[in-house]
Amino acid sequence: MRHERNVWVVGGDMRQAKLAELLFDDGHTVHTWALEGTEEGPVRAPDLGEAALADCVILPLPAAGEGGRLNAPLSQERPPLTQVLDALRPGQVVCAGKVGRELLDQAKERGLRLVDYFTREELAVANAVPTAEGAIQIAMEELPVTIHGARVLVLGFGRLGKLLAHRLNALGARVSVAARKWADLAWAEAYGYGAEQIERLDGYLCGYDLVVNTVPVRVLDAERLADLRPGCLVIDLASKPGGVDFEAAVRQGVRAIWALSLPGKVAPVTSGKIIRDTIYNIWNELGV
Amino acid sequence: MRHERNVWVVGGDMRQAKLAELLFDDGHTVHTWALEGTEEGPVRAPDLGEAALADCVILPLPAAGEGGRLNAPLSQERPPLTQVLDALRPGQVVCAGKVGRELLDQAKERGLRLVDYFTREELAVANAVPTAEGAIQIAMEELPVTIHGARVLVLGFGRLGKLLAHRLNALGARVSVAARKWADLAWAEAYGYGAEQIERLDGYLCGYDLVVNTVPVRVLDAERLADLRPGCLVIDLASKPGGVDFEAAVRQGVRAIWALSLPGKVAPVTSGKIIRDTIYNIWNELGV
Amino acid sequence: MRHERNVWVVGGDMRQAKLAELLFDDGHTVHTWALEGTEEGPVRAPDLGEAALADCVILPLPAAGEGGRLNAPLSQERPPLTQVLDALRPGQVVCAGKVGRELLDQAKERGLRLVDYFTREELAVANAVPTAEGAIQIAMEELPVTIHGARVLVLGFGRLGKLLAHRLNALGARVSVAARKWADLAWAEAYGYGAEQIERLDGYLCGYDLVVNTVPVRVLDAERLADLRPGCLVIDLASKPGGVDFEAAVRQGVRAIWALSLPGKVAPVTSGKIIRDTIYNIWNELGV
Amino acid sequence: MRHERNVWVVGGDMRQAKLAELLFDDGHTVHTWALEGTEEGPVRAPDLGEAALADCVILPLPAAGEGGRLNAPLSQERPPLTQVLDALRPGQVVCAGKVGRELLDQAKERGLRLVDYFTREELAVANAVPTAEGAIQIAMEELPVTIHGARVLVLGFGRLGKLLAHRLNALGARVSVAARKWADLAWAEAYGYGAEQIERLDGYLCGYDLVVNTVPVRVLDAERLADLRPGCLVIDLASKPGGVDFEAAVRQGVRAIWALSLPGKVAPVTSGKIIRDTIYNIWNELGV
Repeated sequence: MRHERNVWVVGGDMRQAKLAELLFDDGHTVHTWALEGTEEGPVRAPDLGEAALADCVILPLPAAGEGGRLNAPLSQERPPLTQVLDALRPGQVVCAGKVGRELLDQAKERGLRLVDYFTREELAVANAVPTAEGAIQIAMEELPVTIHGARVLVLGFGRLGKLLAHRLNALGARVSVAARKWADLAWAEAYGYGAEQIERLDGYLCGYDLVVNTVPVRVLDAERLADLRPGCLVIDLASKPGGVDFEAAVRQGVRAIWALSLPGKVAPVTSGKIIRDTIYNIWNELGV
Repeated sequence: MRHERNVWVVGGDMRQAKLAELLFDDGHTVHTWALEGTEEGPVRAPDLGEAALADCVILPLPAAGEGGRLNAPLSQERPPLTQVLDALRPGQVVCAGKVGRELLDQAKERGLRLVDYFTREELAVANAVPTAEGAIQIAMEELPVTIHGARVLVLGFGRLGKLLAHRLNALGARVSVAARKWADLAWAEAYGYGAEQIERLDGYLCGYDLVVNTVPVRVLDAERLADLRPGCLVIDLASKPGGVDFEAAVRQGVRAIWALSLPGKVAPVTSGKIIRDTIYNIWNELGV
Repeated sequence: MRHERNVWVVGGDMRQAKLAELLFDDGHTVHTWALEGTEEGPVRAPDLGEAALADCVILPLPAAGEGGRLNAPLSQERPPLTQVLDALRPGQVVCAGKVGRELLDQAKERGLRLVDYFTREELAVANAVPTAEGAIQIAMEELPVTIHGARVLVLGFGRLGKLLAHRLNALGARVSVAARKWADLAWAEAYGYGAEQIERLDGYLCGYDLVVNTVPVRVLDAERLADLRPGCLVIDLASKPGGVDFEAAVRQGVRAIWALSLPGKVAPVTSGKIIRDTIYNIWNELGV
Repeated sequence: MRHERNVWVVGGDMRQAKLAELLFDDGHTVHTWALEGTEEGPVRAPDLGEAALADCVILPLPAAGEGGRLNAPLSQERPPLTQVLDALRPGQVVCAGKVGRELLDQAKERGLRLVDYFTREELAVANAVPTAEGAIQIAMEELPVTIHGARVLVLGFGRLGKLLAHRLNALGARVSVAARKWADLAWAEAYGYGAEQIERLDGYLCGYDLVVNTVPVRVLDAERLADLRPGCLVIDLASKPGGVDFEAAVRQGVRAIWALSLPGKVAPVTSGKIIRDTIYNIWNELGV
């Protein structure tokens, strides 16, 4: 259905390797560089000499590694990002993840059409699925009880909170959701979960076997951690600075796990698919 | 837990009658006027003489009936809304549904603290539950096949689309969601439904036994209606102007049902509870 | 995939009419007699003259109407069943529903290979789906609250109890199951429902908004009906003698609905499909 | 509600340790012997001197370890089982798991009322929950894709197959069930899964990302293993001899995991609760 395109996947981890294979399987001409993880399919280019011919060049997530170099953990090559950009042609479509100000400026100087796929809402939604599964996997590994029948509190009811509560409930947990906004609490009730105002949790935290935080705000401070029942597991999915006072947790003997970047870790193939789908959407919009 | 309050419920249909009873059951002092549907509990006031003493006066949904009169279908009384407002005191909290510009101005002139509970997000979310159930009830009544195994298309993935798809899927339907935004399609996939771009439906509509529209835009025009398979049922839940060309549907022999205001019709008690919960939230915020 | 067969569908209601159409759609040669409900597709035979040529003759559910006549509510023809059987050839495969002793003997005398499709376990399981949906439809129509959030008691946890509890739970009801056997209670818990011993219900029945019985034993006698909360709806799905003392219910003002034979009523097309699938299984086993 | 009983828990692993604590928490007087895993609560008896006073003595699962000795992995004590039985009094109720012929005879000689809790249907059902979760945990750990969206085949639709398919489906997998009996296939369809005849799988096995076997019969032989797509994960939950030709799997490079006794491994506390509930049922029946 889609016509074949010429794509270069430059740098990245297993997600980009899978992405390259998936693009190849869809019938595109795919070259990789600074990405040694792919199996048969995509062609490994010796250098970036022909990258300027590509309909789209895909950089990793995040695009930049240390010291302004390409993020390329699977490769011997770690050239400066500017070296990659210099190999491209003005007007060329470049997709990259977590684009910082520096890369943005560099792309602009060279007249590249740079799109950050990590800022796309559909990628964030899709990534919440492997994140939720990863959290459940951790809970299964750590808890001496089944998810079924466990009393679970999900802090926050955004993307991740919604998909996580859905799965926990489906596995038979007794799920409560704590949120700040009335509308979020109404959503929690509409899906059949218990709904608690996050400001009024004090004194009730002893009722849970598992607490999963999705809010990037310090919701579980020392005082609230002290309220948890012995053996309660805490999983924090919030990006930095996180929602848990981990030092207090250690002091108080609370098992608290800060689980970040789960999609790439627990489901690299799915992560590659998610990036592919998002890039297809970008192409669709840009007319690539 | 909550302290007892003095509440007047003035006008309205069965939802307000149930609301008055529920407030009474929660321990509040409740008077009704122009609302003859309540059973034991609330006191029916002979007039509005003491309404100015109330902590909160609750007007119906919508507050205004025809000709600027109070919406009071269960009562003999249909006074002008201004007459009701004149009985209140400046600074008094008044909750009303679907407040129009006129009522807004009248309340302002009299110094009333008027809050429209129908604009509250949490009420909209909660109301989507009885609306979704009502749509399913209609589908069960009208279709000669079970929901289980039926191929269903839900148009739109906002509040109502989400809760409706959730329930249809749970009943065993094969649910596809059509939406415009990539993020909404990602949501649909994250919940396990089929996802279709709403612009690309043409030619695929023949695959469904049931199509439910939630988008207040003409998505099912004559051409698309002609694409439906014989016997396909169409339910339109979108408020005016609706999403279906009903005249074309009649001409083409498509069964299309425009189902509006379902919460009050299919679940008046639940509707009363939803209004009560929203009013509690308003009180909480206003410090009533 | 299946090779085309010569099938006669003789007598029956809308389910048999749909069955005939479905068999036609699958590529079989289909004749009907004493069944005027079919639309284009199957051929209406003027008489049973060529029925003896069929690979399989399908009689209704139940096969026998009043006075030993064919059950043929959609037709002018109501011949004695023996007249139908006399038109067939020894060794011919005949599928019929709810076969009584008399029909069994008559078929044996004529050397027919008679199979009762209604006794098949897979048909009973499949029929539990439209029965469960029908019960939910009734509950939606009758209750002033949503299924979502309603407290529901399901009496019995066999086929119907399982599929009904599954759907009610999926719609957001708080489902409890009452059963006699420990293993059934363990099943209920494994699926995440409350579990109550049926012998110990006394005193707890006031906690439900809806009680659905699936046990063909008098579980809801006058005393237990008196325990129900005002407004509680009772739906009895058990075949005769049923599980509810309906006279006591009337006396005590309890709304109790005895809903029998729901599949044919709420979903005739699905019912036709279920019979078709079962007949395919029978053919598969008999080598038709 | 229950009156306090005198219970001895003798031998066993973490499940019995948890069991002892749970019984203590329910208000019973609990002694343990040959079981050093318990924390505060139950009293560790120095010997079996007062065990004859117990209302019930609980032996492990399995009761017998090597050489006719008590199964007591957490203890220094490993007396012959006969020594334990000799300490008890005729007529005393003894609950034990996986009772063999030898123990049965020994108990009979001593006039003990021995009940095997492992043969109880409700325990088998309840144990299927942690087994299903354990299988999902393994799949999450091993697969590079999410369960969500994965194509999964469940072989067998008994207790375990039902609860496993339920959870996989809830997590967003596309679940197919293969079974032999038509009624089981009808069940699978009634719950909304794909249904495949187990005899007709050949040629279709390439369509799955995950195959979980629950049938204790060699269903996945070398030929069928060869049909699987590269990267497909096989989990065998069937007790010996299992359903997979593991030697062929190794030869052919198929990842196949034989996961036995999951409940005690993945959820020892839940396992303890399940045994407790079953013992309560036994007491209820025996009038202990």
